[in-house]
Amino acid sequence: MCRVYYTPLPRGGKVLTVDTMNANVKKVDYAVRGPIVQRAVQIEKELKEGVKKPFEEVIKANIGDAHAMGQRPITFFRQVMALCTYPQLLDDNKFPEDAKNRARRILQSCGGNSIGAYTTSQGIECVRHDVANYIQRRDGGIPSDPDNIYLTTGASDGIVTILKLLTAGEGRTRTGVMISIPQYPLYSASIAELGAVQVNYYLNEEKCWSLDISELQRSLQAAREHCNPRVLCIINPGNPTGQVQSRQCIEDVIQFAAKENLFLMADEVYQDNVYAEGCEFHSFKKVLFEMGPEYSSKVELVSFHSTSKCYMGECGFRGGYMEVINMDPEVKAQLTKLVSVRLCPPAPGQALMDLVVNSPKPGEPSYQTFMMERTAILSALAEKAKLTEEILNTVPGIRCNPVQGAMYSFPCITLPERAINEAKAKGQAPDMFYCMKLLEETGICLVPGSGFGQREGTYHFRMTILPPTDKLKILLNKLKEFHQKFTQQYS
Amino acid sequence: MCRVYYTPLPRGGKVLTVDTMNANVKKVDYAVRGPIVQRAVQIEKELKEGVKKPFEEVIKANIGDAHAMGQRPITFFRQVMALCTYPQLLDDNKFPEDAKNRARRILQSCGGNSIGAYTTSQGIECVRHDVANYIQRRDGGIPSDPDNIYLTTGASDGIVTILKLLTAGEGRTRTGVMISIPQYPLYSASIAELGAVQVNYYLNEEKCWSLDISELQRSLQAAREHCNPRVLCIINPGNPTGQVQSRQCIEDVIQFAAKENLFLMADEVYQDNVYAEGCEFHSFKKVLFEMGPEYSSKVELVSFHSTSKCYMGECGFRGGYMEVINMDPEVKAQLTKLVSVRLCPPAPGQALMDLVVNSPKPGEPSYQTFMMERTAILSALAEKAKLTEEILNTVPGIRCNPVQGAMYSFPCITLPERAINEAKAKGQAPDMFYCMKLLEETGICLVPGSGFGQREGTYHFRMTILPPTDKLKILLNKLKEFHQKFTQQYS
Ligand SMILES: Cc1ncc(COP(=O)(O)O)c(C=O)c1O
Ligand SMILES: Cc1ncc(COP(=O)(O)O)c(C=O)c1O
Repeated sequence: MCRVYYTPLPRGGKVLTVDTMNANVKKVDYAVRGPIVQRAVQIEKELKEGVKKPFEEVIKANIGDAHAMGQRPITFFRQVMALCTYPQLLDDNKFPEDAKNRARRILQSCGGNSIGAYTTSQGIECVRHDVANYIQRRDGGIPSDPDNIYLTTGASDGIVTILKLLTAGEGRTRTGVMISIPQYPLYSASIAELGAVQVNYYLNEEKCWSLDISELQRSLQAAREHCNPRVLCIINPGNPTGQVQSRQCIEDVIQFAAKENLFLMADEVYQDNVYAEGCEFHSFKKVLFEMGPEYSSKVELVSFHSTSKCYMGECGFRGGYMEVINMDPEVKAQLTKLVSVRLCPPAPGQALMDLVVNSPKPGEPSYQTFMMERTAILSALAEKAKLTEEILNTVPGIRCNPVQGAMYSFPCITLPERAINEAKAKGQAPDMFYCMKLLEETGICLVPGSGFGQREGTYHFRMTILPPTDKLKILLNKLKEFHQKFTQQYS
Repeated sequence: MCRVYYTPLPRGGKVLTVDTMNANVKKVDYAVRGPIVQRAVQIEKELKEGVKKPFEEVIKANIGDAHAMGQRPITFFRQVMALCTYPQLLDDNKFPEDAKNRARRILQSCGGNSIGAYTTSQGIECVRHDVANYIQRRDGGIPSDPDNIYLTTGASDGIVTILKLLTAGEGRTRTGVMISIPQYPLYSASIAELGAVQVNYYLNEEKCWSLDISELQRSLQAAREHCNPRVLCIINPGNPTGQVQSRQCIEDVIQFAAKENLFLMADEVYQDNVYAEGCEFHSFKKVLFEMGPEYSSKVELVSFHSTSKCYMGECGFRGGYMEVINMDPEVKAQLTKLVSVRLCPPAPGQALMDLVVNSPKPGEPSYQTFMMERTAILSALAEKAKLTEEILNTVPGIRCNPVQGAMYSFPCITLPERAINEAKAKGQAPDMFYCMKLLEETGICLVPGSGFGQREGTYHFRMTILPPTDKLKILLNKLKEFHQKFTQQYS
C-alpha cells in the first residue's frame, strides 16, 4: 500500500517496553498501594473463595481512608450534594432549607445550573470566594484573595502541579525539592516522575518527630553540592509521623526559607486533625503574615487542603484547593494556563470543598446535627490516637511517639538480627518482611516504614488510627501478640 | 539563627519566575480557554455591570460543554448519582427500582459502601467489568478484559498518562507523537509539557477532513529525520473537524501502524455523536480484531472514552476510561503504579461512567424515559449539525464541510488581505483578529483555527453546534452578517 522508507529499531517486538518507556516513571515508588496492599487484596479474594486462614478478615490500616473504615459521611454534606446532583429534590420537604440554599447557590455558579458543566479551570468562582473567606476566618482576619485560590482534584493534584512548575535546570542546576523523611510518598513519587532531585531532611524521632532547623541547614548545604534546592515541603500535621508543629518551629522554618530563598509548600490537609493537649494548628499563611511585611511580602508559599481528611474523610470526591502567596504574576498566568489543559477539577469535588469551608452556621437548621457529627468523629479520633500510642508502648520492642495529629502512628520497631538477615537474603526491606508476615498471619495490613523513608538501620511501620475503636483494640492486641511471637521466633 | 554557607543565585527576587520555571510548561499553548475566552468572561462581567454593548449576551460556542448550553442531564443518571450520594434516598419511593438497584450495586463495590472512599487506583472493579461488557457488546462480541480497563479523570487524564509513559529518549531519539492537524489542543499541550516532539499530519480538508495514508507516510518520514516517532494519535469522530472515519480508513491506519511500529492512541470520546447518513462509528478495537490475529495479537492500542460528550455531556463529573490492548505486561504494571500515585479518579465520575456503559435495559422501569431523552438529544444534535453546515455554506467566503459527527464545525474562512495585514501588524493570528472582532461586535465566542493548527495560509474557526436550535439560528445569522460586514470593511 505505501512504501516503507526507513525501518525503525524496535521492529517485531513491542513499541513500548520497560526499556523504551519513560525512565522517570520507572523510578517512581509508591508504597501506600504497593506489594503489601496487592497481597491484601489477594488474601481478601482467597477468603471469599473459602481458603482457610488464621483470621476471618483483612483489616486495612494502610491508608487514610475514613469511609472505608466505616466512618459515616456528614449528613449535611451529602444532602447538599444530592440536591446539586438531582435538583428535582429541591422541591422535597425532607431536605432542610439551609441545605437547599447551599445547593441553589452552587448551582447558580455552574454553567447551565448543572454540576455536569465544565467549570472554569481555576474552579467555580463562588467556591473560591468561600475558600478565601474560610482562610481569612481561620487565620484571624488575615486577608485571602479568591484570585489566589485554585481548586484541585484532591490535594495530590495541586502538589504535583506546583512541583511541575518548579522543576527546571539540568545536572547541577536541576531543581532540588526538600522533603521530610519520613514523608508522604506522593512527594518522592512526583519528584521522581518529574526528574527533579529529592533532598531529604530528617525529622527528629527523639523529639516527637519535630523539625530541627540545623537539620534543614545540613540537608540544604549537602544538596547544594549537586543540585539547586529551591523548594521546601512541609507536612503539618504530619503524615506518616502524626506530629503537630509548634508556632515557633513554623516561624523558624519561614525565616530559614526567606534567608535561603526557598519556595515553601505547606501540606495542611490534616488541619482539623489535632488531638494532643497543648497542640494547636497554625497555618503557614497565618504565621507568615504575623511575621510582618519583611516576610509576608516576600516569601513564596503555596498551601494545600483537601476534602479527603479532617472530620469529613470524603476521599472519593477528589476535592481540594491551594492558595498561592507571593507568586510572580507571570508564573501565576502560566499556572492558570497549565491547569486549563485538563479543563477543570471535578465539579462535585468542588461543591464538596465549598461545604467544608462554608459549613452550617449557628442558627441554621442543620447546625446542631452537623456539630454533633463533626465533634463525634474528631473526639473518637482523639481517643483512638491516645489508645494507639498507649497500647503500642506496652509492647517491648515497639516505641511510639504521641499521635499529636493527623491519622497515623509511625512506631519504631526493634527487629532481631536474624529476621533482618533473612529479609536481606530475600532481597526485602526488613520492615517489609515484618509487615508481610504480619499480614499473612493476622490479616492486618500496614505499610512498612521503608515506604516512607527512615534513618538507616531503623525500622518502622505506619498504621492508621481509623478503624472503629473496638476493631482498633483487637488490631492493636493482635499486633502486640504478633510482635512478641516474631521477636521470639527470630531471637 | 543558622549560618549561611552558600549564597544561591536568585537572591532578593522571586524563587520562581518565568525564567526559572519549567521551560516545557512555558511552551504549552491552550487555545480553547485562551485570550478569546478570557475576554468573553470579561465582557460578561461588563454586561452585568451595565456597560452598553451592541448585544445582550455572550454566546459561548467555544467549548463542547453541553449542559452549559442548556442541555438537560439524563434523568436516570442523576437519580442514580443522587442515590449513591445520599443513600437514605434508597427508602424513597419516588425513585424507580432500576435506579435503586444500580446505586446499590455501585455502593457495594465501594469501600465502606461509600463513594466517599478512595477506590482502587485502576477504578472500581464492578465498573471496570461493566465497561468491558459494554465494549464487547458495542464491538459485536469481540472480548474485552476488565483488567485492561483503567478508569480516568475524564479522557484528558488517560491521554496525558499514556503520552507520559511513551515519552523517552533525547535529541534524535526523543519520542515523536503524530497528531492530526487540525487537532484537539490537549495533544499539543501535553506533548509540549512532556517535552516530546509534536509530529503533524494534515487532514484533507478537500475530502471532508479525511485521513490519507500518503500524508501519514510523508509526515512519518520527515519526522524520522529528527526524532523517534512512536505514537500515532487519532481522534474519531474528529474534534475540531467533525469527520467520521470510514472502516476502510481505520483498517489502513492500523496496517500502517503495524508496518511502521507505531503505538496507536484512539480518542473515541464522540463515539455516539454520528449524524451524517452513510457514516457509522467503528471502534479501532473492533477493526483491529476483525483484521485477524496477525494484527490483533500485535498492534498496541489504547482507546479513550469519557462521560463528557455523546448524549450525556456530563463534563463536570470528570469520568472516563481507557482500554489498553497488547500492552507489554511489565509496562502495564508500571502504568498501574503510576496511576496509584494520585490515589484514584473521582468516584462520582466512575459511577457515572458505569451508568453510561450500563444504561437502562428494555423492560426496566426507566428504559423508555431514558431512550426518549437520549434520542431527543442526539436528533437535535443531528439537526443542528445539518443546519450549521447549510447556513454557513450560504455565506460567500465561508466554506464548511459536512459535520458528520462530534460537536463542531470547522469552516474555512477567506479573509481580505488588508485584514490579514492589520492582524499581523498587531502581532495577532489573522483568525484570532477575526474572532476577537466577532466577539466584541456580536458577543459570539468562537475559537480561531490557529488554536488547533491549519495549513499555512488558510484560516478557520471552530464553532460548537451545542446552542439550542433557536439560539443557534440567531448565532449563525449574526455570524453571516458579521462576515459580510468584515469582508466589506477590509476589502
Ligand atoms: C500529607 C498528605 N498530603 C496529600 C494527600 C493527598 O490527599 P488527596 O489527594 O486525597 O486530597 C494525602 C493523602 O493521604 C496526605 O496524607
Ligand atoms: C477529542 C477530545 N478528546 C478528549 C477530550 C477531553 O474530554 P474529558 O477530559 O472531559 O473527558 C475532549 C474534550 O473536549 C475532546 O474533544
